[in-house]
Amino acid sequence: MQRRLIECVPNFSEGRNPETVNAIGQSIASMPGVRVLRSESDPDHNRSVITFAGTPEAVRQAALRGIAEAVKRIDLTKHSGVHPRIGAADVVPFVPLEGVTLDECAALARDVGREVWETLHVPVYFYEAAAASPERAPLEKLRAGRLSPDLGGPALHPTAGACIIGARKILIAFNIVLNTADVAIAGAIAKKVRASSGGFRFVKALGLPLASRNLAQVSMNLTDYEQTPLHTVFEAVAAEAHACGVEIVESEIVGLVPAKALDQAAAHFLKCRNFHPGLVIENALL
Amino acid sequence: MQRRLIECVPNFSEGRNPETVNAIGQSIASMPGVRVLRSESDPDHNRSVITFAGTPEAVRQAALRGIAEAVKRIDLTKHSGVHPRIGAADVVPFVPLEGVTLDECAALARDVGREVWETLHVPVYFYEAAAASPERAPLEKLRAGRLSPDLGGPALHPTAGACIIGARKILIAFNIVLNTADVAIAGAIAKKVRASSGGFRFVKALGLPLASRNLAQVSMNLTDYEQTPLHTVFEAVAAEAHACGVEIVESEIVGLVPAKALDQAAAHFLKCRNFHPGLVIENALL
Repeated sequence: MQRRLIECVPNFSEGRNPETVNAIGQSIASMPGVRVLRSESDPDHNRSVITFAGTPEAVRQAALRGIAEAVKRIDLTKHSGVHPRIGAADVVPFVPLEGVTLDECAALARDVGREVWETLHVPVYFYEAAAASPERAPLEKLRAGRLSPDLGGPALHPTAGACIIGARKILIAFNIVLNTADVAIAGAIAKKVRASSGGFRFVKALGLPLASRNLAQVSMNLTDYEQTPLHTVFEAVAAEAHACGVEIVESEIVGLVPAKALDQAAAHFLKCRNFHPGLVIENALL
Repeated sequence: MQRRLIECVPNFSEGRNPETVNAIGQSIASMPGVRVLRSESDPDHNRSVITFAGTPEAVRQAALRGIAEAVKRIDLTKHSGVHPRIGAADVVPFVPLEGVTLDECAALARDVGREVWETLHVPVYFYEAAAASPERAPLEKLRAGRLSPDLGGPALHPTAGACIIGARKILIAFNIVLNTADVAIAGAIAKKVRASSGGFRFVKALGLPLASRNLAQVSMNLTDYEQTPLHTVFEAVAAEAHACGVEIVESEIVGLVPAKALDQAAAHFLKCRNFHPGLVIENALL
């Protein structure tokens, strides 16, 4: 029988006070059946991201515990940081991992949102796959602050603001380092491969300097690796780099990557015609 | 907590009578905690290979059940087939998969061997990592029939012969198809990459015709992919092929492949410098 697993990657508006971040993390980890995979705090952004996974029901309960703890502890009237934010529990995406559809995650997001509004009295926006309409789906639109919440509002919670809850596919953060310090070249390559300027539909990309190494990198988010695979993006960046007279030094995966994305890449580069997930021992054992 | 998983890949000397093969398979599958991953019968060889996995204790018991069933049902005095064989349950390797060492599998193999001799009165040879000495390790040496069994003997069981039990690392069967029908080229490449003629230590290779497609292939067994990785062998074959004026059409994985071998290959081809198994979501969830 296949496992049913989802991931939740909430962003909380606190990245300086470890006591607060730990309390939120512990409230999430206190839910049986949930595993916390990563916890990262950025003091400049004054923001923390906690990644956890488990069965849909366990993740749902853990998310509610984490949001409640954040609403109790974080006072946005006393908050400062360079990252835009609208709430104490700012953005809460649910992500399908195994045996669960994106639609199921969207339904779960709407359930969690209803409970956040009813029990915590924090207004809720739904985004991405959980949005009420395509116009309301992009995070940037909701952050702009001109739209009313889906639940509650228009007045926001006095200290906890609002909560943006949604469902999306898993995202791969993938950086490719070039053998040049010229950020303009990295920027030109990023422009070629990203959706916003006519490149791959599921790629966001920027050229950034790697100051400590005097190199430039193409920093990317792959928002649907099943439709725009990791290896396709790598080969496109390699070809564009070559056309600019530079080469790829190395790449870097930031955070976590699904096994399937690596399997696809291996099968592609090994020209393995008969590859399918059932050939992988670990999949056969699940 | 990490899972503890091993695999067992017993070879039984019956590949024509489905009733016998099914009975052996069912005796294995009857052990709770064991999953049968594959079952293949070859009528020419008159031989079947059943691949199953589970916790060490479950696999041990399932192997004993399968061996007992084979000893009961298979009569070697009435057996014919092109494959060399010494017993009804001919070769029984235990293979570490996760959280178990090769040494633990060797100890388990010796336990199983002792029980086979004591309860079924079938003499036992130990091979590979379970062998009593390096000289007795290779399967070919034991098959030659000049050595006495480690347990029992020198007379073998009247109908069930002897049983060769051991432990080895997981094996990857990997074929690479060339854009030529010239088997001599495939043979020359095989000779370059295989251990027996000075190539990679953990590669066995042969050049074979693919008659149905009028192409030749390099047919390989990788006996330790952690020391001689899949991608290293692929690139070596690609380079040798290129030197012979031919190219790789495609590759094929026969049977199952461990996720780690694919992850290593993906990281290599993507030049992913920071790759480690903990980056893979599925590993983080175990």
